[in-house]
Amino acid sequence: MKPDSNDLASLRHKIDDLDRRLVELLAERGRVVAEVAEWKRAHDQPVYHPAREEDLISRRRAQGLGVGLDPDLVEDIFRRVMRDSRQTQGATLASHGVRPGARVLVVGGAGAMGSCLTRWFSEAGYRVAVLDRDDWGRVEPLCEGAELTILSVPIEATAAVAARLAPHLPARCVLADVTSIKSGPMAAMLAAHPGPVLGLHPMFGPTTTSLDKQIVVATPGRESAACQWLLDQLAAWGAVIVTANAADHDETMGFVQALRHFASFAFGQYLYRKGVDLHRTLDFSAPIYRLELGMVGRLFAQDPGLYAEIIFATPERRTLLREYIESVAENVRMIEAGDRDTFIAEFGRIAEWFGPFSDQAIRESSYLIDKLVERF
Amino acid sequence: MKPDSNDLASLRHKIDDLDRRLVELLAERGRVVAEVAEWKRAHDQPVYHPAREEDLISRRRAQGLGVGLDPDLVEDIFRRVMRDSRQTQGATLASHGVRPGARVLVVGGAGAMGSCLTRWFSEAGYRVAVLDRDDWGRVEPLCEGAELTILSVPIEATAAVAARLAPHLPARCVLADVTSIKSGPMAAMLAAHPGPVLGLHPMFGPTTTSLDKQIVVATPGRESAACQWLLDQLAAWGAVIVTANAADHDETMGFVQALRHFASFAFGQYLYRKGVDLHRTLDFSAPIYRLELGMVGRLFAQDPGLYAEIIFATPERRTLLREYIESVAENVRMIEAGDRDTFIAEFGRIAEWFGPFSDQAIRESSYLIDKLVERF
Repeated sequence: MKPDSNDLASLRHKIDDLDRRLVELLAERGRVVAEVAEWKRAHDQPVYHPAREEDLISRRRAQGLGVGLDPDLVEDIFRRVMRDSRQTQGATLASHGVRPGARVLVVGGAGAMGSCLTRWFSEAGYRVAVLDRDDWGRVEPLCEGAELTILSVPIEATAAVAARLAPHLPARCVLADVTSIKSGPMAAMLAAHPGPVLGLHPMFGPTTTSLDKQIVVATPGRESAACQWLLDQLAAWGAVIVTANAADHDETMGFVQALRHFASFAFGQYLYRKGVDLHRTLDFSAPIYRLELGMVGRLFAQDPGLYAEIIFATPERRTLLREYIESVAENVRMIEAGDRDTFIAEFGRIAEWFGPFSDQAIRESSYLIDKLVERF
Repeated sequence: MKPDSNDLASLRHKIDDLDRRLVELLAERGRVVAEVAEWKRAHDQPVYHPAREEDLISRRRAQGLGVGLDPDLVEDIFRRVMRDSRQTQGATLASHGVRPGARVLVVGGAGAMGSCLTRWFSEAGYRVAVLDRDDWGRVEPLCEGAELTILSVPIEATAAVAARLAPHLPARCVLADVTSIKSGPMAAMLAAHPGPVLGLHPMFGPTTTSLDKQIVVATPGRESAACQWLLDQLAAWGAVIVTANAADHDETMGFVQALRHFASFAFGQYLYRKGVDLHRTLDFSAPIYRLELGMVGRLFAQDPGLYAEIIFATPERRTLLREYIESVAENVRMIEAGDRDTFIAEFGRIAEWFGPFSDQAIRESSYLIDKLVERF
């Protein structure tokens, strides 16, 4: 071996040694964090302590700067470590439900979202029963003593299931659903059950491993005070609760879900019709295109039935999508004429309307593009 | 102070101590990495060594697992650390051009991309001159002795600038451009200059701080061997070079750039026309929607002229966009009829066509969504 490559080998050996010590320190940190979680559990303290996290980040950034490190590097690393801590502590706390021992009935518990709910409530110490489509013969014993019943069934089945189930529920049982449309299901639940009713729309799919910082929209139905413990439980798992009325929820979701999904569908559909060579386009692409194409590709890895439900849920949504198609089509003359001036003028109006959101979007997406470049 | 809070305080003190030692180790690692960079510079070795990085990641993952850490946590941290190393090493290497002292003329050097090129070549030890629109009076001295001339001017000006400039260039000068369309500019450069010609399309914007892992498409024009040092220089800065012929490049970019940007434009346009409350939709949104809306918002923070250039560049692109509009519009009957079966069948065909890309997209975008949740 030449002396020079030997130098490189010895430097690399030093790096490996430092990296081993880094991993050992991280493991030691993990053990101390587990002790903190134990302490918090014993004293009913919340897992997440934003002020302490920001303070820790600030001090480590300053230390990093002092020893010649990029403070952003230090911040990124500690944010990642603390996220892991939150999840570890969350896992410890999950076994500590806000109403442990209470009976919870998950209707549609064999489905993807139903399975998640069943697992989360079970791990938090609830007594969970599942009612799926073949279990109606046992509906009486399944409903007995239930303090919470959650409907996790397809949109079109929600009203019928609520009507069929409600007569068997205890009067004080909280009836909730997790349907992505709220007006219809809320009306059906309120009509069927005279007790506490709460609508939920978890803004995440069943592939989510943790509720940490996930959004759940809550639409109050009846007797909010009696439903509060369910929201507390979701919050204890780390979820962020956003309250709305059912009609506002449905209108906003038309844009957030139906329109966005349909636009991605139509984009993927055109690539398919043109037989575009996806791999070649990725060879040529900036990370931003990879990310944008990934948003479209992501759709097609998922359940078409779920997207059909979301897109075709209501007549209002279908009107929204028809208007979108018309709006896209109105550009055809500008395109055919190669009319740059019209494009630039329209672009300016839209940019002004987007306002500061655009700058924020640049900042966020640039951060993510860096992550994508770094990782893949 | 109660004994119990004292316990928490002492545990937190332990964590702070561990974190201080982590930062010290990172700083020590940084110093060794700087030594490696020195060695590489002295031996003309590339900065980025993918095999060594993957090997290091695998070993640290295994070690993490052995000591009870989540291997993904360990991987994320070391990828972030190595990215920092690459940038540090890249910064060291940038001062070591592959042809230091060579004269480089940047035409349009006052523009955003031109300024970047000027800075990068200057920092790498080249003698850089800039020719902007008011400098034609000094064209002779500016061109004298140039070994490389890069055109960084708007698409529609490229042909005229090449024709006007070429007679003043030394015969052996490499003439290159950075236009996002290649067929027309390549033909113009080849017609104007009898010497070496190379087309470049950097797949990133002028806001990019580093060339690390950025893609540059190269379309060879004439005398590839004489142009090779320019590609070597870009690679030395960390860029990934993808070679293509000009016609293939332009066709693929129709999809990668023109179609994608137009689709985002039309989506933002509809939100604007409907006066959607962006902030309310974000309140309700899963991170995936935030990310998708961010991709649209991002467009409108940028230069409309640049997008008009890309979208209206050629008649072929305008045809592509017209066909896209027609393809979107074909769905109107399905939407109006609420025809779920047609939607699900079409979705299935497209999903099959996307194939494994969809799963990869789920994996990549889920990773990014985690990053988004973690950071913002």
